[in-house]
Amino acid sequence: MTQTLDIAVIGATGTVGETLVQILEERDFPVGTLHLLASSESAGSSVSYRGKNVRVREVDEFDFAKVKLVFFTAGPAVTLSYAARAHAAGCSLIDLSGALPADQAPQVVPEANVEVLAGLKAPFQVSSPSPSATALAVVLAPLRELIELQYVHVTASLAISAQGREAVSELARQTAELLNLRPLEPKFFDRQVAFNVLAQVGTPDALGHTLLEKRLVRELRQMLAQPSLKISATCIQAPVFFGDSFSVTLQSANAVDLEKVNAALEDAEGIELVEAGDYPTAVGDAVGQDVVYVGRVRGGIDEPSELNLWLTSDNVRKGAALNAVQVAELLIKDLL
Amino acid sequence: MTQTLDIAVIGATGTVGETLVQILEERDFPVGTLHLLASSESAGSSVSYRGKNVRVREVDEFDFAKVKLVFFTAGPAVTLSYAARAHAAGCSLIDLSGALPADQAPQVVPEANVEVLAGLKAPFQVSSPSPSATALAVVLAPLRELIELQYVHVTASLAISAQGREAVSELARQTAELLNLRPLEPKFFDRQVAFNVLAQVGTPDALGHTLLEKRLVRELRQMLAQPSLKISATCIQAPVFFGDSFSVTLQSANAVDLEKVNAALEDAEGIELVEAGDYPTAVGDAVGQDVVYVGRVRGGIDEPSELNLWLTSDNVRKGAALNAVQVAELLIKDLL
Ligand SMILES: NC(=O)c1ccc[n+]([C@@H]2O[C@H](COP(=O)([O-])OP(=O)(O)OC[C@H]3O[C@@H](n4cnc5c(N)ncnc54)[C@H](OP(=O)(O)O)[C@@H]3O)[C@@H](O)[C@H]2O)c1
Ligand SMILES: NC(=O)c1ccc[n+]([C@@H]2O[C@H](COP(=O)([O-])OP(=O)(O)OC[C@H]3O[C@@H](n4cnc5c(N)ncnc54)[C@H](OP(=O)(O)O)[C@@H]3O)[C@@H](O)[C@H]2O)c1
Repeated sequence: MTQTLDIAVIGATGTVGETLVQILEERDFPVGTLHLLASSESAGSSVSYRGKNVRVREVDEFDFAKVKLVFFTAGPAVTLSYAARAHAAGCSLIDLSGALPADQAPQVVPEANVEVLAGLKAPFQVSSPSPSATALAVVLAPLRELIELQYVHVTASLAISAQGREAVSELARQTAELLNLRPLEPKFFDRQVAFNVLAQVGTPDALGHTLLEKRLVRELRQMLAQPSLKISATCIQAPVFFGDSFSVTLQSANAVDLEKVNAALEDAEGIELVEAGDYPTAVGDAVGQDVVYVGRVRGGIDEPSELNLWLTSDNVRKGAALNAVQVAELLIKDLL
Repeated sequence: MTQTLDIAVIGATGTVGETLVQILEERDFPVGTLHLLASSESAGSSVSYRGKNVRVREVDEFDFAKVKLVFFTAGPAVTLSYAARAHAAGCSLIDLSGALPADQAPQVVPEANVEVLAGLKAPFQVSSPSPSATALAVVLAPLRELIELQYVHVTASLAISAQGREAVSELARQTAELLNLRPLEPKFFDRQVAFNVLAQVGTPDALGHTLLEKRLVRELRQMLAQPSLKISATCIQAPVFFGDSFSVTLQSANAVDLEKVNAALEDAEGIELVEAGDYPTAVGDAVGQDVVYVGRVRGGIDEPSELNLWLTSDNVRKGAALNAVQVAELLIKDLL
């Protein structure tokens, strides 16, 4: 008989949590008992897993000693409230909220820095990085040998679902209001997001940077092991339900060999390279897929040390739930 | 009695042409007889000007000797077909299609390089640059004294209307189909553009660059009189009807003084600076306005020589029709 592992998912009714449960099933993760946790609001509801409805319970009443592994897919406040309790009860944990410092729970994307996992002992703590840092790590990792990175410039056009269920409903509602010529009543957002692009996702700090932009820079540097890599990051909000898109410009210390870049991307794990002329999109390609799509691989218009790329990735799958499960798969031998 | 000028607008039934006619009226441009021209398809229809319906006629049958000034707001092929004929008939011309080389018809945005106009004699030929180059020129010009520009990185999120009337209809149609759960049938675009972001606008060349990206680089360099300025440009297609948005990162040779940057933008012509914390959007701010909006003025996360900006601009007004009329206003004394 194969061994199994008892698991808890906190935030199981959310955008990421529901997908995570679905991915555990898709990938035949050796789950023993699955405990689905959320706030008191949805305690009592249920989520489908392997053809059964699994009852959702309140996280506050959960005995963490019952499980060996906990996925934290509620917000950072929930991680900060329960991570220590779970860890003290002997649980390993994978956090998807970005709440834990890197020295406590390193950010890991297997395609980029799987070696970090070798240094961990159960009960371990790992972070699955923000969707933007994840997509960029998958694509920049195989280019490290080819390109002496000097500066990375990213404009990330994020999906509405990056902000959770309520944001998704609001885009649908605003769009219908506008198409039906009814007055627009923004609620979750403070303005029209349908047929519009917002300059930021979340509230900026005193210097003008949002948390997602700071996470992108910090997490990417950590995963590429280049703590002083120069990165400019702008995260904007597109009226797209699912799937992030990234316009990326890399500056190299040397002229970029585009043939070698294409070959490296073609060979790399976790990447689907789209042929020149065509390009991937969030909706048409990335959503529902496990890989990061790369297209528009091109040099500068007349600058040989420049490399431009276009990436699209499913923010909820590879950007969150899938990456967390992939990390768990690599660590599971220590837990069984 | 004030003097007036007889004028022709080619492409008067189009997105840019109709707005241009409206702006001539709004700004009380001293128009004598206004000749509205288009293809045989819409010859016979009419466009409203100063409360009257002006009949549209076929450009091919027009006698250019009747006018002193011609606005070319049909596509580049139309400019190439008729510019020489118009010029030979003694007309000055302002082209909005990007078809004419800079040495024949320099790109001009008054806020950036008004001095070019002083060197022209009637009958002159001037180009109004692409909306992206126009917005960037307006904003970079007042920063030239403060920032020793080394590299400009732009991701331009372009409005659907950048591709004309048919593209606008298709976004509306696709959106309604999706909201009503009807099968999607892309026509103008080759794929879903509603609730999606496309990686490019137009077809790329063999090296991967689109015409709009190459125009942005070429026109901006010419207007800033920095022929070897490094510029990386990516123009993407957002599901937004009107209004372009730009994520811009500038690299300076020195540390950037943000207070001075804010002061310079505050004082500059043609710019509305949005206070820190808030930000402008295409739909909420730029559309229907004459200025380029600037927000999210911030340094690098830890790089003092980096400056990040977010711009929004009405692609049809300042990006095209308004800029062309502003140029005409500055040159009119030579024509009357
Ligand atoms: N969406 C993405 O693309 C994405 C990607 C990567 C990481 N993340 C991160 O993942 C986390 C969840 O995001 P999401 O998009 O899935 O959000 P969401 O759709 O809004 O779901 C939030 C989940 O957290 C639960 N929750 C909220 N407050 C709670 C509390 N006090 N105690 C226990 N559970 C609570 C909710 O349960 P109830 O049903 O009881 O309210 C729900 O299950 C966030 O930290 C987010 O930053 C999101
Ligand atoms: N849209 C923008 O944001 C924007 C901004 C800056 C510059 N531009 C440039 O301005 C030009 C027009 O763009 P648009 O967006 O206004 O396009 P549009 O909405 O599709 O309108 C095209 C116009 O050109 C006319 N036309 C087409 N073929 C013609 C022909 N063979 N002879 C005479 N007239 C002809 C059309 O007349 P019919 O009614 O007879 O077809 C119509 O008036 C393009 O070069 C574009 O690149 C556009």
